[in-house]
Amino acid sequence: MTRDEGPDLADLQRRVVEFAAARGWGTYHTPKNLASALSVEAAELMEIFQWLTPEESAAVMEDEAQAHRVRDEVADVLAYLLQFCAVLGVDPGQALRDKVHRNESRFPLD
Amino acid sequence: MTRDEGPDLADLQRRVVEFAAARGWGTYHTPKNLASALSVEAAELMEIFQWLTPEESAAVMEDEAQAHRVRDEVADVLAYLLQFCAVLGVDPGQALRDKVHRNESRFPLD
Amino acid sequence: MTRDEGPDLADLQRRVVEFAAARGWGTYHTPKNLASALSVEAAELMEIFQWLTPEESAAVMEDEAQAHRVRDEVADVLAYLLQFCAVLGVDPGQALRDKVHRNESRFPLD
Amino acid sequence: MTRDEGPDLADLQRRVVEFAAARGWGTYHTPKNLASALSVEAAELMEIFQWLTPEESAAVMEDEAQAHRVRDEVADVLAYLLQFCAVLGVDPGQALRDKVHRNESRFPLD
Repeated sequence: MTRDEGPDLADLQRRVVEFAAARGWGTYHTPKNLASALSVEAAELMEIFQWLTPEESAAVMEDEAQAHRVRDEVADVLAYLLQFCAVLGVDPGQALRDKVHRNESRFPLD
Repeated sequence: MTRDEGPDLADLQRRVVEFAAARGWGTYHTPKNLASALSVEAAELMEIFQWLTPEESAAVMEDEAQAHRVRDEVADVLAYLLQFCAVLGVDPGQALRDKVHRNESRFPLD
Repeated sequence: MTRDEGPDLADLQRRVVEFAAARGWGTYHTPKNLASALSVEAAELMEIFQWLTPEESAAVMEDEAQAHRVRDEVADVLAYLLQFCAVLGVDPGQALRDKVHRNESRFPLD
Repeated sequence: MTRDEGPDLADLQRRVVEFAAARGWGTYHTPKNLASALSVEAAELMEIFQWLTPEESAAVMEDEAQAHRVRDEVADVLAYLLQFCAVLGVDPGQALRDKVHRNESRFPLD
């Protein structure tokens, strides 16, 4: 796959925004509500691991039903993060690159 | 920088993974711990909005201090999501595209 | 003690601890796991409200199905909070009274 | 202190409700906002444990600074749970007793 074919964050964001807009869900998508929804989905991802030992948590993808659940919750987290960013005009990739730069100063290598 | 040169999810993921690896944080990065950290960061993003009205929440980027805080928490959520996916071998972009396909069947347009 | 005098926190705590102990769930009930479970239940309570307006959220008990869901999630949050406190030897009532005292200094009345 | 004098849930609830009312915070205390605040505090409690092993998490009260932080977050979770219940007219103790009854049927002992 060449780079040009790979969907990037902006492409993914456009898809989730168009999906919601086509269904008239914009009214519900205040930043406050989207931040709540993101937090709920992150908790659902965490729920998969809540009673597992560290070792069991590392093996979770070996069970296909659990693996599907993990990918499904990852998708939900990313979808709401991108919707949230679209509504507020935040560029999540740029935000992360800026944060990595700040953290390189905060946690310098020897 | 042209759009085609823009870092995509895989590039961002490589950067956060290398950042943590260079600092020897791998021991802490079990899927269980990363899912908790993701959930904590999502809650910190939500906290910005918790006492705001829907209208106030829509105007949050007009205040530079709040805008910085929003971008910082967005970066943290995305960073832990990408670390989590790296540890478990999940492709977050593919997971989201698959979910959008499933949701197109689940919520069909008229 | 008669029912009218109301079981207090210690009684409720004893019941949830005995319930889990009788089922051999103690192995799973590390403080870390119980804090995760508490956070998941709090998110499930929040999920009930995530797309509601402030006004709709105030009327949620008028619908019996929603009211049941609210009471069910409140019970789960309280149960895990009490289990967590039992495992670590924290007295939640005393912790709250101490916090109220600290907050009376922090947010003094005129 | 005899058992009858012990503050119970209703006493604690009255105290947090009066505290907020005396400071005019009622406007902010919609059920939706309180459920968010509860979820944020639960995440802050979880954050204490996020990088700890199960063994380290069991020893967290041995460090006085950590022990204080645990008690402080427990207080915040309980405070917002009681405020939430006050606003919606939910009796948290009754909700928990009802849930224990339902769970006794759902998870019967041999």
